[in-house]
Amino acid sequence: MSVSKLVNGQAAETINLTDRGLQFGDGVFRTIKVLNGQPVWWARHYAKLVHDCAQIGIVAPSEASLLADIEQLKADNHTLKIIVTRGETARGYVAPADLSPNRIVQIAPLPAYSPDLATHGVKLRSCSTRASWQPALAGIKHLNRLENILARREWSDPSIFDGLMFDRDDFLIEGVMSNVLVLLDGVLCTPDLSESGVSGVCRDMTLLAATQLGIPTAVCKINRRQLSQAQALWVCNSLAGLLPVISLDELHWPVADLNKALQAAIELLKEDQ
Amino acid sequence: MSVSKLVNGQAAETINLTDRGLQFGDGVFRTIKVLNGQPVWWARHYAKLVHDCAQIGIVAPSEASLLADIEQLKADNHTLKIIVTRGETARGYVAPADLSPNRIVQIAPLPAYSPDLATHGVKLRSCSTRASWQPALAGIKHLNRLENILARREWSDPSIFDGLMFDRDDFLIEGVMSNVLVLLDGVLCTPDLSESGVSGVCRDMTLLAATQLGIPTAVCKINRRQLSQAQALWVCNSLAGLLPVISLDELHWPVADLNKALQAAIELLKEDQ
Repeated sequence: MSVSKLVNGQAAETINLTDRGLQFGDGVFRTIKVLNGQPVWWARHYAKLVHDCAQIGIVAPSEASLLADIEQLKADNHTLKIIVTRGETARGYVAPADLSPNRIVQIAPLPAYSPDLATHGVKLRSCSTRASWQPALAGIKHLNRLENILARREWSDPSIFDGLMFDRDDFLIEGVMSNVLVLLDGVLCTPDLSESGVSGVCRDMTLLAATQLGIPTAVCKINRRQLSQAQALWVCNSLAGLLPVISLDELHWPVADLNKALQAAIELLKEDQ
Repeated sequence: MSVSKLVNGQAAETINLTDRGLQFGDGVFRTIKVLNGQPVWWARHYAKLVHDCAQIGIVAPSEASLLADIEQLKADNHTLKIIVTRGETARGYVAPADLSPNRIVQIAPLPAYSPDLATHGVKLRSCSTRASWQPALAGIKHLNRLENILARREWSDPSIFDGLMFDRDDFLIEGVMSNVLVLLDGVLCTPDLSESGVSGVCRDMTLLAATQLGIPTAVCKINRRQLSQAQALWVCNSLAGLLPVISLDELHWPVADLNKALQAAIELLKEDQ
């Protein structure tokens, strides 16, 4: 049987109960698409992992150790998930500064998304579960994901691709498992994530692709009224890529002319690395 | 060697990497003081565990299974920690409704608190890390504790017992590892935890003890000005009990006359069960 999970470079199915990832959600993660043995946007993902670790005071694993893990797992066309936890302690919130982090690398099959999603678009719903306000953690892809889980529990209709989450003040933040882009008066806008939400690599890539196409972009607050007046909407993440949105609750949009060009520009950015 | 950890009633040191507690912080916990083989305020703790599980849609373990675990661990004078996670899934936020939760029960030595803390009081500091706003999770003792960890990283001075956390609007919420009670104009007030924070059993017990002593109590919003004008302050948790606060940053208080009576009334409530 092939190995699908490594802990600190060793094949493993389990982790110690004392790991702070389990005890407190004390860690960060990345979800990465591997195509033909290449982790897509690897440099960006690794830079974001280092950034997120630094934000919560964890020493990030070396790039070499992670690349060796990926090679050892023989990832070819897979979902790759990397978790870094602060390490293991007996109990309590205090962790010694020299604590050794745990590095968990696992592969799984790619999700079976129909290629139609990228061309014909996806349906969304609004979640009643709010995105939390927490500037100390906003933007970071950390292991405290209970609010996403509660939001995801709000629907079971398989035709709904994702649910949108709003903050306390009713500003749009993100999808449960995606970032959101909104075309407003010709500007490709994405919600400000300095107080809530998770900032994903595919969001950065979409903004970069738009800039290359000469489309103005903005990171800003987006309210419900603006959302209802949007010319087009997209969601994106590292596994699904950029997907046009054709409905949100009672709102409907055609797939924008821009869609194909944006997706093509994003594809080119994959080869760039 | 004696067993200190059980997973679903079996001696264990590890848990599967697929456990959602590790992957997402998808679970709840309790920390309970065991004295002379008795988990203090057990009925309250178990009721709160059932409540917290229900809030996030996890089936709580039976009381009998937990009591059997505690007996198997031969807990006499220990810290008892119970974690319940939603269970194990391959990947993604979606969990099948019939997923089997994992029940982790572990014992550790009691923290070595000096008895002086209860009589002479403790020193606190204000944390700059804010308590998040998240009404869907507020009050619940869940596994998403990164904000407490970041707040706890703000100080290393061992003379500081705990740090106070405030919300976005600068209202007092809680200590990093405790709840807070504030005597304001003769009313024992504790912060409203409907939008932030963790509601602990010792907070409930302190309010109950105060009521028995004829002291009016209130659950309310407490701002910085009120805090600075407080007649007395306490912090509490299930391990340390109720501790008077003698300083918070530049603010100082004598130990209130009320302190002894409150602590004695809380002690009586322990025997009540």
